[in-house]
Amino acid sequence: MSTEEQKEGPEAAAPAPREVKCVVLTGFGGPKMVRCQKKPEPSAKEGEVLIRVKACGMSFQDLMVRQGVLEHGPKTPIVMGFECAGEVEALGENTSGFNIGDRVIGFCDYKAWSEVVAIPSQFVYKMPENMSFQDGAALPMSYLTAYILLFDIANLRQGQSVFTHSVGGGVGIAVTQLCHMMEDVKLFGTASYQKHEAVKANVDHLFDHVVDYPQEVRKLSPEGVDIFLDCLCGEDANKGISLLKPMGKYILYGSSSIVTGETKSFFSFAKSWWQVDKISPIKLYDENKTIAGFQLRHLLHKQGQHQYVKEIMNKLIKLYSDGKIRPCIDSAWAFEDVGEAMQKMQDRKNIGKIILDPTLEPKPKPVSPARIHTTSQCSEDKENTEDQQ
Amino acid sequence: MSTEEQKEGPEAAAPAPREVKCVVLTGFGGPKMVRCQKKPEPSAKEGEVLIRVKACGMSFQDLMVRQGVLEHGPKTPIVMGFECAGEVEALGENTSGFNIGDRVIGFCDYKAWSEVVAIPSQFVYKMPENMSFQDGAALPMSYLTAYILLFDIANLRQGQSVFTHSVGGGVGIAVTQLCHMMEDVKLFGTASYQKHEAVKANVDHLFDHVVDYPQEVRKLSPEGVDIFLDCLCGEDANKGISLLKPMGKYILYGSSSIVTGETKSFFSFAKSWWQVDKISPIKLYDENKTIAGFQLRHLLHKQGQHQYVKEIMNKLIKLYSDGKIRPCIDSAWAFEDVGEAMQKMQDRKNIGKIILDPTLEPKPKPVSPARIHTTSQCSEDKENTEDQQ
Repeated sequence: MSTEEQKEGPEAAAPAPREVKCVVLTGFGGPKMVRCQKKPEPSAKEGEVLIRVKACGMSFQDLMVRQGVLEHGPKTPIVMGFECAGEVEALGENTSGFNIGDRVIGFCDYKAWSEVVAIPSQFVYKMPENMSFQDGAALPMSYLTAYILLFDIANLRQGQSVFTHSVGGGVGIAVTQLCHMMEDVKLFGTASYQKHEAVKANVDHLFDHVVDYPQEVRKLSPEGVDIFLDCLCGEDANKGISLLKPMGKYILYGSSSIVTGETKSFFSFAKSWWQVDKISPIKLYDENKTIAGFQLRHLLHKQGQHQYVKEIMNKLIKLYSDGKIRPCIDSAWAFEDVGEAMQKMQDRKNIGKIILDPTLEPKPKPVSPARIHTTSQCSEDKENTEDQQ
Repeated sequence: MSTEEQKEGPEAAAPAPREVKCVVLTGFGGPKMVRCQKKPEPSAKEGEVLIRVKACGMSFQDLMVRQGVLEHGPKTPIVMGFECAGEVEALGENTSGFNIGDRVIGFCDYKAWSEVVAIPSQFVYKMPENMSFQDGAALPMSYLTAYILLFDIANLRQGQSVFTHSVGGGVGIAVTQLCHMMEDVKLFGTASYQKHEAVKANVDHLFDHVVDYPQEVRKLSPEGVDIFLDCLCGEDANKGISLLKPMGKYILYGSSSIVTGETKSFFSFAKSWWQVDKISPIKLYDENKTIAGFQLRHLLHKQGQHQYVKEIMNKLIKLYSDGKIRPCIDSAWAFEDVGEAMQKMQDRKNIGKIILDPTLEPKPKPVSPARIHTTSQCSEDKENTEDQQ
């Protein structure tokens, strides 16, 4: 805080609070609802680690939050973001295990997209020396999800086959890298056609999202697949379950198919639910199948499994240090350009992780008489954002 | 075949076939439907191993077959039995990997309860020197099931908790032994009260079948359990699923609750189906749960997974040789006493495996003016069984 800011209060008493940039969701809807704003800098409460953020990860769940389709979603306005990496700036009372200046990864329930964030220490993990902040921010959501899906729930074994959607997305890339650590695993996947050139080396058989992929898989593997990872939900859930081999495992870990337009569509939401068949355990008994659901944020923030997640995060950090996994970064964006970054993800144009970096300058915007991008620069407060350029 | 049997045919042509004792299901119903009869000795066809049987295993599925409640069950009359151990007596054409005299375990789709049985070689496994025939016959159904449930589907890890019904049954004992190979696994289980003294050392917390076990488990572990193994089905399926911790796994591997009276009860069958809630994968996603079904016989005989099963059988044989697992034999019975043996299992009075041994003499029966046990001796054919003593 500069001394200038402190000198002229009427009472010359409490200093004006320092401010930090952050990405605020002002209401549910399209990219315009997400704005770079300034907020008072948070401080570390008991058990918390205060992190000076150097990079933030974006995932499909952020789009769902923005559109208001996440179940038990937040109230607006709220600072968005579930994952970040940075340096420890301060420690709250009774916070142990960290020192000022430690390079760390933080996993939180919103509020990660900020220059400074306070996170309970159980959701903070130390980064190794050779890990960049961007890689650190790209790890939590994608790699924890992929690791738990493959090695805990599906119990992937040598010689098995895995189907995964969105091969070019954060989790998709993590899945392919983790599968390649195992011998003789056959990978099937989908990605938009325009990504095929970039990601085809990662899988054995690649299909476009829009083709009849169950039929294509059956042509190559009449029995189906051992493991089916589904982040789409809707009618793809039934397709995935029907594609399982005996002893096969289907895991639903997302519902990105309900993110279509700009705003919450009750129709697409209801349709997604209605399309998914309910299943009797007796049918699974008859067919030797497993179905599962996995949602990392629930596990951590509603179900209190931070110890379990920390153990897996430590394994991932070891795999990173050993050069076995390496996040793929699609692009890094200034906070001011978050709307454009999100649109890229919504258009399924990213290959790998989209990163927000609070130290980046916003991209220069074309000066035009047309209405100005509301997300192009950081506003001082949330009231006057529409007039900013 | 004795020469006497050959000399006096009208044409003095084909020798009379040798006969072997076997256990035949003559129709669906109570213990009287199961009879020891003589049948022509089978021979080994191409790819088959002919086994001189020394011991047979009985499992709850045999009761379900007898009562006609097994889905896609057989037509009667049929020689019963899914598992046996004995010596190789002959090999069919193009049958490799075995020699006459080898001690083997055989897994088949019916017909195991016979003095001699022919089994395709892919379902035959060599026994180590230190394994008794009774132990060999006790392994397949129980230990393969327990191993696949715990280590493939549930992916049991150190420090987790496992709930299993029928702790005193074949699978239940196998489950407890395999769990004890892992460090720090907490075991919950049910068994009939009269078995408690005998099996209580095998688990950490033992309940009677009839108590409100979900409530009892919640008292000890408010979060529930990591793994729930259900062989009862019916309303216990819903109880099991509701008892899961976050990341918990429920596996249905039997439906013994529908075996109640002597004959097929459509009411109890329909009730069991009707009581089991269908589940949406979206609910599993929301709750971080897994549900699965497992049925070994389907896997082997309808779904062709004999290579997978053989690999696990080899692991089990190694564990046996290393002294890590040891089947618990409740009792061994002559073929003639099969009805009584089955009744003991139906009354849930066995602790461990019930074995049929074709070399045993039938138990002496009390001579009484009352109607004679129809299963007390081996009949020459199926027509005159009622009159035998």
